[in-house]
Amino acid sequence: MRIDGVSWKSIWFDENCNSINVIDQTKLPYDFQIKTLKNSLEAYDAIKTMVVRGAPLIGVTGAYGFSLGIKEDPSDLSVKKQMELLNSARPTAVNLSWALNRLYKKIKDLDTQLRFQYALKEAKEIEKEDVNMCSLIGDYGMSLIENIAEQKLLETGIKKVNILTHCNAGWLAAVDWGTALSPIYKAFRAGIDLHVWVDETRPRNQGASLTAFELKGEGIPHTVIVDNAGGYLMQRKEVDLVIVGSDRTTSSGDVCNKIGTYLKALAAKDCKIPFYVALPVSTIDWELNSGLKEIDIETRSPDEVTYINGLNDSGNVDRLRLIPIGSSSFNPGFDITPAHLVTGLITERGITPATYEGLQKLYQL
Amino acid sequence: MRIDGVSWKSIWFDENCNSINVIDQTKLPYDFQIKTLKNSLEAYDAIKTMVVRGAPLIGVTGAYGFSLGIKEDPSDLSVKKQMELLNSARPTAVNLSWALNRLYKKIKDLDTQLRFQYALKEAKEIEKEDVNMCSLIGDYGMSLIENIAEQKLLETGIKKVNILTHCNAGWLAAVDWGTALSPIYKAFRAGIDLHVWVDETRPRNQGASLTAFELKGEGIPHTVIVDNAGGYLMQRKEVDLVIVGSDRTTSSGDVCNKIGTYLKALAAKDCKIPFYVALPVSTIDWELNSGLKEIDIETRSPDEVTYINGLNDSGNVDRLRLIPIGSSSFNPGFDITPAHLVTGLITERGITPATYEGLQKLYQL
Repeated sequence: MRIDGVSWKSIWFDENCNSINVIDQTKLPYDFQIKTLKNSLEAYDAIKTMVVRGAPLIGVTGAYGFSLGIKEDPSDLSVKKQMELLNSARPTAVNLSWALNRLYKKIKDLDTQLRFQYALKEAKEIEKEDVNMCSLIGDYGMSLIENIAEQKLLETGIKKVNILTHCNAGWLAAVDWGTALSPIYKAFRAGIDLHVWVDETRPRNQGASLTAFELKGEGIPHTVIVDNAGGYLMQRKEVDLVIVGSDRTTSSGDVCNKIGTYLKALAAKDCKIPFYVALPVSTIDWELNSGLKEIDIETRSPDEVTYINGLNDSGNVDRLRLIPIGSSSFNPGFDITPAHLVTGLITERGITPATYEGLQKLYQL
Repeated sequence: MRIDGVSWKSIWFDENCNSINVIDQTKLPYDFQIKTLKNSLEAYDAIKTMVVRGAPLIGVTGAYGFSLGIKEDPSDLSVKKQMELLNSARPTAVNLSWALNRLYKKIKDLDTQLRFQYALKEAKEIEKEDVNMCSLIGDYGMSLIENIAEQKLLETGIKKVNILTHCNAGWLAAVDWGTALSPIYKAFRAGIDLHVWVDETRPRNQGASLTAFELKGEGIPHTVIVDNAGGYLMQRKEVDLVIVGSDRTTSSGDVCNKIGTYLKALAAKDCKIPFYVALPVSTIDWELNSGLKEIDIETRSPDEVTYINGLNDSGNVDRLRLIPIGSSSFNPGFDITPAHLVTGLITERGITPATYEGLQKLYQL
């Protein structure tokens, strides 16, 4: 997608140098820096420290990182170790283990000399598939936005569609297009009049920083709000549609996504506003039934609540303490939105109800 | 209430100097400073810039400020002007106009020489009534917490009661005790085992700064969470009770409180957790029926969303920018929690259902 008129992807492999290039997302939105990852350990660090984040991008980074690890030492023992190491960088991200397993299966029976070449080919394939998948999510989601725009115009005479999103499920979380933002990009490029309410998304503010940065880059009208404000806007029908992403989706359609998603889903239900989740089918965990009972939620460092990063008046990125010295904080990373609050799931295979039957249908087309 | 073992009030009038003393709440929790307000214009500024905040405290500050204005010039024309000025400092705060009107009625037919003396007497009376009122809210609310503690112990064998609160409706928002926090103080002093989840309360972080500061001062176990996390905790039954304050309450029991309150009420309803609102009956506006249709919500400066204040690593209060340059923000100050989401209202006249009949009953006792 575009930044100041120039097209970018969040990750690209440099075949001349055998290195991975990524946009350093810890520096955004204030500083735009490319980071080069030269081996699997650097890929591990990039995932761990959130230089790259977002389920799809973590998967692709893991795959390229694993390839570089295999290049260094393609022996069975080393391959196993590399895989374990990379997997431990973000245990919640189902895409990561999925991508690593996919590479592993491809190369495990190959001669060690061939392993890097085939691993890299597979990693590139994963990257390409991710872009196509996000693009398809965008196409399906765009038709939804189109319908809502037509209906709104008919009912109220107003053209502009207001979409609320939480966290960052845009192209920076994937390779290109993104998941929750992909329908918005496609709809905007197709000329639909729209405006996006961007949830700040405490504690890491991925909305205020990354989603706002992405939308600004594409020239899409948007307004940042605190996470507390979404209910107010929905009560006043200032939101026509909510689209969020998913880190993990159960077979029953429960959605595990960034902390606070559940609260927005409740407000959307109460205010009769459609609440959609955009996700690649790779986030579906068919072994899970109840999100609330079966998904362990990652508890992250309390420092993410206690301190906040931003740009100081001198133009440097700095941090501030937000709570009294002597008070403590708690920081769960995700919550569960039960399927009954979800209007529908937007996937690369089509839009479907958030039910077991709905998800099954995606595979019968 | 206590700070480091010493008892404080949020406001006190100095009769020797004819000046108002307040704790400067814009400096908390990092810096504890007393600010002296010497005339009505300084009282106006203190309300406007949130040196004092919270409905009851604004009312008392307005009353003392009005008294000082009357002292300067007790003529009919000046009195009217002073009243208009002070009222304009926070138009949403119904307590402010209520307190100003109460003083005005008391002095308007008096000889100008007597006006200051009687105005000050009335302001002191308002202060005293506020302390009593908050103390009574605490007594009624404490019995509620006691019941919940007993029931929990019976059902689960666990003693500790977890209470979630949003924003700051503590003694810093009143004169002493507070509204939503008063039951917590009374219960803790009575020996009930409790822990408080403190919503950060973006954008101004009154929870993370003021509520945490208050609870720390009293030695009450508490943990700060981002506003997004409350739903997660309620889904897991880590919350036994929610208590919030109210800036304005309709005759039907709708509650206008800090932005984000509505989202917590939705989660409490969904998770079958009692959701109580603590309020002095002076916040009831009998002329209002529907909160959503009839209450104009104050839109505050977008800078409160764009920038955040906190303590930098050098120990100074600083601000950081949180959104990309070129992105804009929107900042509604309050939202409406419809009466059907409210389990009950805790007032100085007792606990009552959030209905017209419930509120009427308070006056029949």
